[in-house]
Amino acid sequence: MMTREMCLAMDQNDSLAALREHFALPGDVIYLDGNSLGARPLSSAERAMQLVQQEWGEGLIRSWNTAGWRSLSQRLGDQLAGLIGAGRNEVVITDTTSINLFKVLAAALTVQARRDEQRRVIVSEASNFPTDLYIAEGLIGLLQQGYELRLVDSPEAVIAAIGSDTAVVMLTHVNYKTGHMHDMAAMTAQIHACGALAIWDLAHSAGAVPVDVHQAKADYAIGCTYKYLNGGPGSPAFVWVNPALCDEVSQPLSGWFGHASQFDMASSYMPQQGIARYLCGTQPIVSLAMIECGLDVFARTDMAALRKKSLALTNLFISIVEDRCAGHGLKLVTPRDPAQRGSHVSFEHAHGYEVIQALIARGVIGDYREPGIMRFGFTPLYTRFVDAWDAAQILGEILDSNAWAEPQYQVRHQVT
Amino acid sequence: MMTREMCLAMDQNDSLAALREHFALPGDVIYLDGNSLGARPLSSAERAMQLVQQEWGEGLIRSWNTAGWRSLSQRLGDQLAGLIGAGRNEVVITDTTSINLFKVLAAALTVQARRDEQRRVIVSEASNFPTDLYIAEGLIGLLQQGYELRLVDSPEAVIAAIGSDTAVVMLTHVNYKTGHMHDMAAMTAQIHACGALAIWDLAHSAGAVPVDVHQAKADYAIGCTYKYLNGGPGSPAFVWVNPALCDEVSQPLSGWFGHASQFDMASSYMPQQGIARYLCGTQPIVSLAMIECGLDVFARTDMAALRKKSLALTNLFISIVEDRCAGHGLKLVTPRDPAQRGSHVSFEHAHGYEVIQALIARGVIGDYREPGIMRFGFTPLYTRFVDAWDAAQILGEILDSNAWAEPQYQVRHQVT
Repeated sequence: MMTREMCLAMDQNDSLAALREHFALPGDVIYLDGNSLGARPLSSAERAMQLVQQEWGEGLIRSWNTAGWRSLSQRLGDQLAGLIGAGRNEVVITDTTSINLFKVLAAALTVQARRDEQRRVIVSEASNFPTDLYIAEGLIGLLQQGYELRLVDSPEAVIAAIGSDTAVVMLTHVNYKTGHMHDMAAMTAQIHACGALAIWDLAHSAGAVPVDVHQAKADYAIGCTYKYLNGGPGSPAFVWVNPALCDEVSQPLSGWFGHASQFDMASSYMPQQGIARYLCGTQPIVSLAMIECGLDVFARTDMAALRKKSLALTNLFISIVEDRCAGHGLKLVTPRDPAQRGSHVSFEHAHGYEVIQALIARGVIGDYREPGIMRFGFTPLYTRFVDAWDAAQILGEILDSNAWAEPQYQVRHQVT
Repeated sequence: MMTREMCLAMDQNDSLAALREHFALPGDVIYLDGNSLGARPLSSAERAMQLVQQEWGEGLIRSWNTAGWRSLSQRLGDQLAGLIGAGRNEVVITDTTSINLFKVLAAALTVQARRDEQRRVIVSEASNFPTDLYIAEGLIGLLQQGYELRLVDSPEAVIAAIGSDTAVVMLTHVNYKTGHMHDMAAMTAQIHACGALAIWDLAHSAGAVPVDVHQAKADYAIGCTYKYLNGGPGSPAFVWVNPALCDEVSQPLSGWFGHASQFDMASSYMPQQGIARYLCGTQPIVSLAMIECGLDVFARTDMAALRKKSLALTNLFISIVEDRCAGHGLKLVTPRDPAQRGSHVSFEHAHGYEVIQALIARGVIGDYREPGIMRFGFTPLYTRFVDAWDAAQILGEILDSNAWAEPQYQVRHQVT
């Protein structure tokens, strides 16, 4: 039988425990929503001030050169690359995940149109993160060339849906709702065996689970920096393209930052070689620069150690919740098999929305996704074992007392 | 004959002079590059700290609701709208100018494809800002539907290039290089008379010259917030669509923030009504939020007063430079007719690059654009008449002494 003291002892023996000191976390909350918005690295305030006061205020336009703004997307991409198994000059941080998906999806369709123009189907999961599906819809609607988005209802149904008509398979590695994780290497091998290209959305993977895009032989990967990477609200996203494919086609959001000689101001486009052709317009420098603060914390550890703690946290939370809240109609949605799990745990409950509101009122911040799903993110950089214990106890108290049924918890407002 | 004392007197009589106090400007520079990166509003440091420390650090995910992040693109769009003659709920601030151009250009082509599918030409100027042309190229290349980009060599040649094959005319209101300003209303009327739609890039107009998109009957407008609007380096861009057209089609970068009910997490896309359908992914909140600091300063004056001072500044600068630097081979590129001029002045010189470097070394910050063009931006919010005087004198000294020929000014590095 687990006790709070045992959880405290786990924290005392945790070799990663000291990393929490690099984050600003309010004293009155248990933050289990780093899968939605990562906590603030302490150094971000100083970095923001340096940017605003010195680089912008004093350096003014000169800072594009003197403060390195010009190459910031590339420099931070290089710093992120190791977390997803990418090499130097293979990743840029720019725009949003949605925009980057549009770029790689358009590029992938162009590659396939040259190889086999019969391949006009994009396969994905109906449970994929909605914006990914919307972007595919938008691209298909624009192309007017008989492309089709084919959605399957379960992770297991993906491979069977790929045929000789399939151009691209577009999957999110860790499902935003269930926390289910695909085997990226095995899936990619099967996708390639069917003649399709593989696009991986790593929004819930980068910084959360070990990823190796090269070992998996992925074709394209995109993802987000404001979740497990702690880049700050809405910080720009990343994009990686397998070097073997990267220079084969240009991507259609061909803005001046992707031009081979940007300041020649030529009237026709010529893409840079390599991943820099995935750059487009001028980036939001302050939001972009703060990403470095989160990446600096990752440099103090490695993904193997983080994965070990992540699984220990999610295993612990599942076990305590199922024990403490038995009989309250909670259903574990996340796979029990650790190998199929990302770094968040989801429970379904008939009144999931209200329960999450009641938890937030008690200082336990998780979030809610339709229908009925309560998500709890575990960020090994700053989540403690005792947080898992305390959160489970408070969840139990709310369910025991039906506190979630109070009127103030019925009012619907949503978080991102 | 103008003197420095007369310029100082003009500053003393300037009713806008006090607005300069809202900006942080280094004491040792004369900043004439607000057309490239606006100066820092003093309040931006406090706003950045509030965002980073309170809203992100303390509020965490809750700030999407409690700090208004969810509707920030719309709220700031409403605040900007008046500067371009737009109404409430007609503007959003999001993504980059390049990305927003892609959205409106794709939408415009879709509208025209429904009205008259023979119209497959996009007309623009070869001297348009390069990224605008690159984006059009990217879209055309993606569509593979026989679209064509037709570029003309002068502002006067635009109308003659529009025919029954023309879908869209895509113009930048104030040319980034020459400072030439189109008559937006007259051009739009002629474009419409030819059956084409008009897209206006207001990057060098918003906050620089009076603009009235409704009075001009424009169809689409996009623009930048980091130049004359002083939003900060790379701050997100704006997009306006004429309400009469807005709901006619969906734009292809259809991300979740443009969805009619974002948090239903439906697997198919349904655009919001109105300009919010031009939203796509999660925005860089810190860079976005600081735009408010610049817009707040505009609320203390109006575009008519700013235009009056802008023309007084550019007239003064042209006159002093042509007097002080006579015989040095400077050629005014900007129209002498104030009605055809934006808020910057460009002179061509055979060694323009070196001269600009020598000026920067002397604390006069202008910038350079190929070929041979030196740009000097005049921002009536913070530029003084004496700045125009002093800059012209220093330019004269550099030309008199051939200081620009020193080796350190030959090294090429570029600003944005």
